[in-house]
Amino acid sequence: MSEAMNACKGTTNYQIVKINGQSIESMNEPVIEEIPLTIFLNGKELVTMLAAAGEEKYLVIGFLATEGIIQNINEIKTLDIDVMQGVIHVTTVSGETAAEKMFLKRYLTACCGKGRSAFYFVNDVLTAKTVSTELTISIKEVMQYSELLEAVSETFRLTGGVHGGALAKNGELVCWSQDIGRHNVFDKLYGRCLTEGISTYDKILVFSGRVSSEILLKVSKMNISVIIARSAPTSLAIDMAEELGVTVIGFARGQRCNIYSHKERVLGL
Amino acid sequence: MSEAMNACKGTTNYQIVKINGQSIESMNEPVIEEIPLTIFLNGKELVTMLAAAGEEKYLVIGFLATEGIIQNINEIKTLDIDVMQGVIHVTTVSGETAAEKMFLKRYLTACCGKGRSAFYFVNDVLTAKTVSTELTISIKEVMQYSELLEAVSETFRLTGGVHGGALAKNGELVCWSQDIGRHNVFDKLYGRCLTEGISTYDKILVFSGRVSSEILLKVSKMNISVIIARSAPTSLAIDMAEELGVTVIGFARGQRCNIYSHKERVLGL
Repeated sequence: MSEAMNACKGTTNYQIVKINGQSIESMNEPVIEEIPLTIFLNGKELVTMLAAAGEEKYLVIGFLATEGIIQNINEIKTLDIDVMQGVIHVTTVSGETAAEKMFLKRYLTACCGKGRSAFYFVNDVLTAKTVSTELTISIKEVMQYSELLEAVSETFRLTGGVHGGALAKNGELVCWSQDIGRHNVFDKLYGRCLTEGISTYDKILVFSGRVSSEILLKVSKMNISVIIARSAPTSLAIDMAEELGVTVIGFARGQRCNIYSHKERVLGL
Repeated sequence: MSEAMNACKGTTNYQIVKINGQSIESMNEPVIEEIPLTIFLNGKELVTMLAAAGEEKYLVIGFLATEGIIQNINEIKTLDIDVMQGVIHVTTVSGETAAEKMFLKRYLTACCGKGRSAFYFVNDVLTAKTVSTELTISIKEVMQYSELLEAVSETFRLTGGVHGGALAKNGELVCWSQDIGRHNVFDKLYGRCLTEGISTYDKILVFSGRVSSEILLKVSKMNISVIIARSAPTSLAIDMAEELGVTVIGFARGQRCNIYSHKERVLGL
């Protein structure tokens, strides 16, 4: 836990002017570091991500798994990260795969949009799975996990510039990640779980941000059945959650929360 | 103004369970609508965007302009939007262009990552421009514009699920857009300006969200020299802003704000 809690604290001080009513002060203020990271997969440039510094290895592994390019950590042959240059070289045991080709197609000719479907990308149909765990959660746990997430988000308190996400079980946060991008938080979390062999199906996901359809897909791909978010969900995320068997709890702040889908997992309703 | 203010109110009611302390209530609650929109450019599938319903025309036009695929509205020959199917067909006067090819490359083999540069995508080097307006702003205006943005964001108050952005001048908001995606807000705003012939160089941009490098690039491409955000900037955004001549003001809430770059435009410091 301690290592996870210390990860990804990349901030830089900037000389700013701080205004508060009549007070005008020149001072140093921490700002979250944003870096571009370009992934080369089996020698070919795959994508450039913009991310908060830290947890780069987990980010790449989680991203490749979410995109269906790898199924597990053993499929990665080599992984070289040059954070200064912003370049990551990954080779896989199998070499080029169908999923990799499809990832490229995603931005070119894939996807539907042909008829409104909850699934708009080919890869998602392959990797999103219906979640059917017996997991339940009490309202007290919802409040508790949301509070715990807020408590660990030191970088957010410092910079206001990051989202945070955690896996929780038995009243505790098991692991935790943060990033400037909502999607990256999930990739970092998933990458950590795959690397360290942390099971996901028996955990609750707690998230600081809004739950859009893309976030919901990532939750389902991680085989997570309950997401607690401090912010709002979108309509498409709720529709997908109903279909995929995910319990979506939003606006979990203080003593409040809203339950949007698969309410049967929440005890005492 | 009135039309702009009424745009994009797409929300759907969902039957949810609302918890507040000991109170458990089943009720209808509005949720922001998220829809996938696939753009076909000159007959070829270009991209699928996830967006809030409304202002679809502006979204497409602003997106094509930001990507450097069109320079102005006259380059669009036809624009057919089928919101129900989530499909948009655009044809341009010139047919396929270099910028269009480069957009596709962006997700494949383009970009740097080879040596840390503020500019990581080829298209951005072509379309981002150094802003050099004589525009100034008072601290009073900063507070005022931030407050005005909050006041018009009815959908945010209803759903908590959208970001809002506006162009401001002479103490008033000139136009306003909202979306579930931070990037889409800028594309919608820019598309509206191009369509309605609203000049951007003499306006201040007010934004509800965080200012990452991608947001800063959009600001610069719109030829905007001052952005006021209610949230935090990232390090890369500030570095780019210094280079491109943009004044970044963050955390503009109530009587507070932080000025991060090109402070010379802010009066009375």
